[in-house]
Formats: sequence, structure tokens, C-alpha cells
Amino acid sequence: MDRKTEFELRRRRLVSGLQEARLNAFLVTALPNIRYLSGFTGSNGALLITSERALLFTDPRYQIQASQESDCEVKIVKGAITGEIQKWLKRLRVNSAGFEQNRISYEDYSDLAQGMKGIRLKPLTGIVEALRMLKSPAETATIKASVQLNSAALEQALRRFKSSMTEVDLAAEIEYCMRRLGADGTAFETIVASGARSALPHAHPTAFPIYRDQLLLVDMGAAVAGYASDMTRTYAVGKLDGKTRRMYRAVLESQLAAIDAIKPGISCAAVDRTARETLRRYGFDKLFIHSTGHGLGLEIHERPRVGRKEQTKLEAGMVITIEPGVYLEGLGGVRIEDTVAVTAGGSEILTPTGKELVVL
Amino acid sequence: MDRKTEFELRRRRLVSGLQEARLNAFLVTALPNIRYLSGFTGSNGALLITSERALLFTDPRYQIQASQESDCEVKIVKGAITGEIQKWLKRLRVNSAGFEQNRISYEDYSDLAQGMKGIRLKPLTGIVEALRMLKSPAETATIKASVQLNSAALEQALRRFKSSMTEVDLAAEIEYCMRRLGADGTAFETIVASGARSALPHAHPTAFPIYRDQLLLVDMGAAVAGYASDMTRTYAVGKLDGKTRRMYRAVLESQLAAIDAIKPGISCAAVDRTARETLRRYGFDKLFIHSTGHGLGLEIHERPRVGRKEQTKLEAGMVITIEPGVYLEGLGGVRIEDTVAVTAGGSEILTPTGKELVVL
Repeated sequence: MDRKTEFELRRRRLVSGLQEARLNAFLVTALPNIRYLSGFTGSNGALLITSERALLFTDPRYQIQASQESDCEVKIVKGAITGEIQKWLKRLRVNSAGFEQNRISYEDYSDLAQGMKGIRLKPLTGIVEALRMLKSPAETATIKASVQLNSAALEQALRRFKSSMTEVDLAAEIEYCMRRLGADGTAFETIVASGARSALPHAHPTAFPIYRDQLLLVDMGAAVAGYASDMTRTYAVGKLDGKTRRMYRAVLESQLAAIDAIKPGISCAAVDRTARETLRRYGFDKLFIHSTGHGLGLEIHERPRVGRKEQTKLEAGMVITIEPGVYLEGLGGVRIEDTVAVTAGGSEILTPTGKELVVL
Repeated sequence: MDRKTEFELRRRRLVSGLQEARLNAFLVTALPNIRYLSGFTGSNGALLITSERALLFTDPRYQIQASQESDCEVKIVKGAITGEIQKWLKRLRVNSAGFEQNRISYEDYSDLAQGMKGIRLKPLTGIVEALRMLKSPAETATIKASVQLNSAALEQALRRFKSSMTEVDLAAEIEYCMRRLGADGTAFETIVASGARSALPHAHPTAFPIYRDQLLLVDMGAAVAGYASDMTRTYAVGKLDGKTRRMYRAVLESQLAAIDAIKPGISCAAVDRTARETLRRYGFDKLFIHSTGHGLGLEIHERPRVGRKEQTKLEAGMVITIEPGVYLEGLGGVRIEDTVAVTAGGSEILTPTGKELVVL
């Protein structure tokens, strides 16, 4: 199946949902959703979909690129795209259009709504995101390629590890290895956090040297053909004290238990609970201050959220991360994260990197 | 002056503008604006500013980081931040609050507005962005450091240039050199475009080898202490034909003319016109399909836009790019871009990299 056909099939799936909701158009403004439905990878655009047509609006910078990437009708707009969308809504005699209320600014919405009397604009959330939650085999294969590249990059970068390195130096090696292995770039800002800084779940790498006899946390993801990977590993640089080693054991056990719980039909909340219950046995559950994981794909954070309150049931075809962590201010943090595909039989851990505590 | 004081001064400048507009609070939702006014660099947050108080809302992941980075009162919120903001709007007896209409989603706005009877929410655009347009000497110095690092990275990367390289290989070298020199990362996706691909103003690097006897366009920017740099250079890989060399001459002349035009009091439109008029003499003006430049700082694209219709007058303290380009589908494109500070006496080109045509 060629890519054009895949985009068209996705749009058809969207359109059949529209008809049920008695809408005759849908306006896509989130860039990853535009990419998913049209192939277009530019940084500015909007996609108007009806049962008959798919119009891709962008600016003159993308004139050539848009036509190369997308099977949609490309409309190059100088100035505000909203004005051109209004014209087309009228021209196509649309009387009710859904829009992505969480991925359009209040201002763009106001501009669009102005003078649109007679056209109902219906705020919707997560319509395309719900389609994207279930990956096609081709998408899962691309995520797997991204995950494998990410692990290979970490392995190569750690071969260059020296105790005199700074956090930034190691981040540079990691990102260089990703790129050389063929990544489009990083899927998010690489986290390299040493010692007490590892207790900041989203620390920026610093120019401080990596400490000896402390934890070192690395959270990294590549983008490959647009698809994200996501992995966290925590290392011992030299010797760790007993409490810190116990933290590592607890997090690893929690992560394995959560992965074991994954199967079609189980709720995300139940997987999250499994991770927390394991940590509670160690007395560390109060130090686990984020969700257990999240879907990923064209974006690094997608549905479903593997969190306390998420009732979504896992289905074969979803790809999620499992990443419990324990953070102790002043001492440091441990997080262990894999990317996992939900399969008919349970799950497949896509991340090939080992998880036993490694001493650098 | 320590950083805390600088954030406080910025907030005071904002608050005095609020009072003129008869607002007693302002809600900041754009992350770069939050960073500018509070120091907080996390990926989720909101900042509520009144004449008396500055409240920074974020989630538990940033509990430690927010207090370290910011001088504001940190409120850690589990779940939706909008609910907590509503509580505080009531508690602080705010009766009219401005919000950033182009940097809040329609959904977040709707959530916020719900049940807020008696509190006027006023949509505003570009309030903090207008403050950010004029850089402090410390900010200009940081941008200069970013620009210099960016140029040093290009020089180092080109020393490793080999004719067998792919576009991605060269992008990898560039980004590695940036990181090793101390950048936080890239300010935007590095563009390395060879041959006909250089005619795509925003091309992603590919795994294709860099062609001989063709143009090679490199557009790159580092982020240093949060501040962006932006530079484009176009090279000859081997020999170029007469038309292509003429394109290069035209773009260079256009870029120099536009920079010469920069001085306090001149409109952005006039600078843009200067660039276009020079290209017109070569018959290339129709192939220049974007603006002449843009401000930069905490974001890669800031006000003012140096475009056809932008009436904003340049002032000393602004920092802008000047980047005319000519793009010929099938043949290739030339773009030359420097970062330039507007000074009392005219301008200072911050970018140290040479602009004569270099043959690789």
C-alpha cells in the first residue's frame, strides 16, 4: 500500500465519524494531525476535510514541499490562513464543521468564527488523536525502528563515556549518535541528570561534571521518519549507598510488574496501580510523582495516558511507555522506561537495552 | 543586578501597562513569556500577575525546579491548572484580567471562562511580546554569545566536511559541535539542503549524499541560555554555472543593502523593500518568497517581522535577522542570513562568519 492510500484511508475513517456526528467538515489545525492525515510536515498549515475533498492550506514557503509530500489539494495562502478557510467553508457549502478546540488558539477560533453566521462551528477534542491511538503495523514498525535506533545511539554514546564528562557532553554524544544513525533529530530535549539533579524529572543538562558515586539518569528519544521513541535508564557512576540501590530495585520491580500487567482489555489505571503498588511495598510510592506512562507516535506524548484516572482500556495496536520513577530531593532519582507495544497476546517490549543496574 | 530583580522589573513594566488598560491581572500562558517574566523553564505552566503578586502554576514534575528557577510564588497543581487559576482569580478579588488570546487554546479559554461571571476576561495579543522586542544589554549579550557559538560550530563542522557526506551527516556534525561548545541545543531544526532541495526554504535534511557542482544551503541556530541565534550560508560544492553564481551575487548584494538600511526610526517595511529592490535589478524579486527577516530572542521568531507590511519602526535594542533568498524550483536556492542588533548609530552585525561565496 503506498503512502497516499494510507492518508486517504485515514481521512475516510475520520469522515465516517463526521457523518455520525452530523458534521459535514472537519478543520484540522494540530500539525501532527495534519501530518497524519495528509503527509505534510511543514510548520504552518491547516487541513479542511469534507466527504468529497481534502484542502491543505499553507504559506508560500511550502509551495513545493506541500505538493511533494501530500496527496491533498494544496492552497498556498499569503497572509492569514483563517480568511481563506472561511472562503472555502462558504464555497463548499459547509453548514457544520468540527474543529480541534484544544489545538487552535482562542484568537484563530475568533477570527474563524467571525462572519460565519449560518455555519455551525463545533468544538471537539481528540478526534484525530483517538484514531492515532491505534497504530497500523507500518506505524508500529516505524516506532520500533525509532526505538532500536535510540538504543543503539545510547550504546554508542556510552562507549565514549568518561568520568570527566559534563552532562552536556554526554547529551551531545547521544544526539550525535542518534543523528549519525539516521534520526531526524531528537523527539524531545535529551535529559542527562547527575547526582541530586536526577531528582528533577525534567532536568536540562548542565555544564557541571557528572558526579562520582552518584546516580546518572538519561532520558532520551529519537524521531525517525517522524515517529518518536522514548527510553530512560539510570546508572551508577561508581558506588551507590544501600538506600539508592534499594530505590533502583524498587523502580525496576515496579516497571516489570506494570509491563506484566499489560494486555488488551486492561485499563490504563490498572497498569498504573500495579506500578504504584509495587513501590508501596518499598515505601516509595509517595515519591512517584508522575504517571506510569503514555502513548507515543508522531508526538512524544499521545493518548492513552497511563495514569491513575485513565479508564481507557488497552488494545492491541497501541504503543505506550512504562516509566515509573522515584525522586528524593537532595539525593537523586531513579526512572526506568521502555517503549512497549500492546499485542493480541499481551505485550512486546520494543526497547532492547538491558535494565540491570550498570556501573559506569 | 541579579536575575530575580530583572524578572521583577519586567513584571513591573507589565503591571504598569495593565493599570493603563484598567485591568487588575494578566494571565500568561505562552511558555517563553512565562520564562521571560518568571525564569521558569518547564514545559507546563501558567503565570498570574497582579500589581501585588506573581503566582506560577505548574505540575508536580516541576516542584523542585520551579522554586529553584523562579522568584514567583509557586503553586503545584495536580490536574487541570485552569481550575486553580479560577480559584485564585476569586481569592485575589480580580475583576478584570487580560489573557494571551493567541497563546491559549480555545478549550483552555472556555474552561477558564466557565463560571467566571463577574470577572471580565479580556483577549489581548502581543503584550509580553512587545516588551520582549526591546532587548536589555544582558539579553543582547546572550544573543551575541549564541550567535558566536553558532558560527564557531559551523566552522568546526565544515572542517569535517567530506564530499561523501549526506545532508544528515553534516547536520549531525553541526549539532554535535553546537552542543560541545555549550549550546542548550538547536533553536530550530537544522536545515542542510543540497542541489535542487536548496530551493525548499524549510527542507528537512535527507540521507542523500551532498551533490557535487551544486549549491549547498545551511540554515542553523543554537539556543544558548535560552536565547536563539540564526544564520544561513549557501556554499558551492565544486563548480557552479553562471546563473547560479549570479543568484548568489544578487542575494549577497540584497542582504548587504538591507543591513545598510537598518537604523533607529526606519520601518521594517522599508528594510524589506530595500532587499526586494536590489533583487529586482537582477530580475530575481519574484523568486524571493518570504520576509526579509524577523526578531529573535527566547524564541526563534519574534517581533518585529521584517516584512512588506510591517510598519513597526526599528529601535536601538532590537535584534533581528536579515535573510533574503532566491529559490528556483529544480535548480536550487540561495539564502544568506545574519543576526543584526539595531544600535543608536545604526546596526551591528553580530554574525562573524564571512559571506563571500566559499567553494567546498
